[in-house]
This record gives sequence, C-alpha cells and structure tokens, in this order.
Amino acid sequence: MVGESKKALSIHDSLLRKDRVIVEIGSYSFEEFCKVVESFHGYQAPGVILGGIMVSYAMEELPRGILIDAISETPACLPDAIQLLTPCTLGNGWLKVINLGRFALSLYEKHEGKGVRVYVDSAKLDGRREIKNWLFKLIPKSEQDRDRLIAEIGQAGRSVLGMQHIQLKGQHLGKTKRGAIVNCTMCGEPYPERDGPVCLACQGQSPYVQS
Amino acid sequence: MVGESKKALSIHDSLLRKDRVIVEIGSYSFEEFCKVVESFHGYQAPGVILGGIMVSYAMEELPRGILIDAISETPACLPDAIQLLTPCTLGNGWLKVINLGRFALSLYEKHEGKGVRVYVDSAKLDGRREIKNWLFKLIPKSEQDRDRLIAEIGQAGRSVLGMQHIQLKGQHLGKTKRGAIVNCTMCGEPYPERDGPVCLACQGQSPYVQS
Repeated sequence: MVGESKKALSIHDSLLRKDRVIVEIGSYSFEEFCKVVESFHGYQAPGVILGGIMVSYAMEELPRGILIDAISETPACLPDAIQLLTPCTLGNGWLKVINLGRFALSLYEKHEGKGVRVYVDSAKLDGRREIKNWLFKLIPKSEQDRDRLIAEIGQAGRSVLGMQHIQLKGQHLGKTKRGAIVNCTMCGEPYPERDGPVCLACQGQSPYVQS
Repeated sequence: MVGESKKALSIHDSLLRKDRVIVEIGSYSFEEFCKVVESFHGYQAPGVILGGIMVSYAMEELPRGILIDAISETPACLPDAIQLLTPCTLGNGWLKVINLGRFALSLYEKHEGKGVRVYVDSAKLDGRREIKNWLFKLIPKSEQDRDRLIAEIGQAGRSVLGMQHIQLKGQHLGKTKRGAIVNCTMCGEPYPERDGPVCLACQGQSPYVQS
C-alpha cells in the first residue's frame, strides 16, 4: 500500500505543479498533508484531503485563542481531518459525530457554541468532474482515478466550498456527565449506574459473543 | 498546558524509575507513549495511557498480518489509544464506537469477526487505589493526583486487565453502504437518498441554527 501511495503522490505532484496551484492546509503544504493523511488514515483518502482544506478554511474564520469543539456531519473521512488539524479528537470528547449524511463540518467556541460550518457547495462543482464523480458516486470507486481526483481537489481548493456562521442549539452544548460508576452484577465490569440494573451489554446490546 | 504536562511527566518518570517498571506500548516506551498521547489528545490522559496498554495486549494476542477492525465500548479515551496504535481510525471506518459504558475495547479480524476483547477487571484492582478512585470516580477529578495515577497505571501494566476471545455477531460485520447520493431539495447539499425526501438536517436533526 505504501508503494502504491508513493506512486500516486508523485503523479498528483506533477499534476499540481503543471497548474502551479499552491494550497496550504494548516501548517502543511498540500503534499505534506497528503503524507500525514496516509500515515494516520492508512492511505491518501480524497475525503480526508478535502476535509483538511475545509478544516483550515473554518479555522481561519474563527477568532484566535478560543477553545473549540467540532462536529462532523458524517463518520466518513472528515473526523480524521479534524483530528489531524485541531485539538479535537473523538477520545477527548471535543469532536462529535452527528451523522446527518452531509459532507460538512463545524468548528465552534466550546462554551457559547458560536462558530462556522463548512460544506461542499454543489452549485460550485461545474467543471470539477472528478470531485462530482466521487461525491455523488457517479462511477464505481474502482473506476475512479484517485490521482486525478486528489489533484483536482488541490486545484479547486476552497472554490468548491461554502461557509455558514452557526449557533449551536443549547442541548448540544456542554459535557454529558455519566454519573456514578458501579460494577455490573452480571458481567462484573464497571458501568454507569444510570444505564440500568445491569450494563447495556448485559441488557443485550453487545455486538459479540464470547468464543 | 504543555508546561504543566512536562512537569507531570517528570514526576511520574521518577515514580516509575523508583519501582523499575518497564512497560512497552506498541513500539513505544511508556514515557514515549505518554508524550504521543499528549500531542494527539491534548494532555496525558490516564484513560488513553491505560488504553494503550490494553491495545498492545490485544494486538499481541491476534495473529500477525491480518486486517483488523476495532470497537471501543466507550467514546471516552479508548478511541484515541486505538487510533494511535492501530491502523483503525474513526474516519476510515475501521474503528467503531458502540457505547456500552464499559472501559473495554475489541480488535478482531475484519471479515470473519474473530478476535479479542480487553477490559479492566474489577477483581484485580486490590491495592490499586489511584486506578480505583479514577475508574469509579470515587473522588472528584480535581482532587485526583494525575501523576500518581499515571505512575500506578505504568506499574500495574496488564495485571489489572482481563481478556476474552470474541466472535462478532453477523449484523456488525461488513460495511454499511450509503446508496445513491443526491442534492437535498431544501438545503441543496448532497445527502444519501435513502435518508428520505430531504436530508436529515432538513428533517430537523441539525444541532445548530444559522446565525
């Protein structure tokens, strides 16, 4: 996989150079960010690379020095762009996924919930054939040309994006407290007491059986 | 925050040295992994550090060279340990969070669903005062001594963990396909057609309003 990705990088490098496009993503050059994505995500996923452009667009619009939280409106790709470029991770709770099926993300000030939302603007995709084919899945993934797609994402930069200023609804602000932790009387493991008399797994929600 | 964490590191460094404990987490020493956690997660979170020990225990039990998927049974901390030490990330879909409220994770072979689950074993916590205080939230976070807790986690290593061999249930195997993507007639953004006549956000599930 590493060999293949290196090849891909050199092809879209040359495509990018041809058009002399300079795209910066956070503190990375476009090419550097592609390598960071490969290292974290496993391969140079177009969605994470486009996501990087979206995150860096959103970051620039926010005041400096504030504490930010993030929402990804899809579990696909965008969470990794957010985790790579902001302090927000899934495990620290500053990134949440609310799956609305849209390729969009929001960054906002943690306490007041004021921030920005960045999305792919369908109306700005004229002439962006590769991005359209990928976003709307117009041709099967196996027939898509990932090198050209990544190059087109680099060439397009922010020109295919839209931005909205948003205010988080009250119920989505603040941290959810888990309350008291006790041992489950069935499996014996610690769980939040408010989940019920036994833990959710022992209530039947476990995705596996012991083997 | 960086300064404070550096101080914390030097304190638990010395506590670890005193007991001459050697813990390795993946390809990292315990101290190196603490620094990696700080860089990704924002601070040296005890849960991510214990999670690292859990992931590395699970990885060693699995055959080499297989493709793995992961489940975290909590959104807190463990997803970051998994993302740091395995190829599984939230954005590439190889990590899923199924919130059962238990401090446990599973790694398993992607196609057949056979693997291992690692959890904190309450029965093995005798004499682990800091871990107990933290896991069961017996004293407020502000009164917990994070340096001592991290040192105790390093000293305990795998001795506080349990492991089970698991088989994923069929409905949790494989990838969910999103089907056709079309523009929403209300917001104009691409969304999975199967979500309904308009996207989930336009159906009222958006966590924010435009400001």
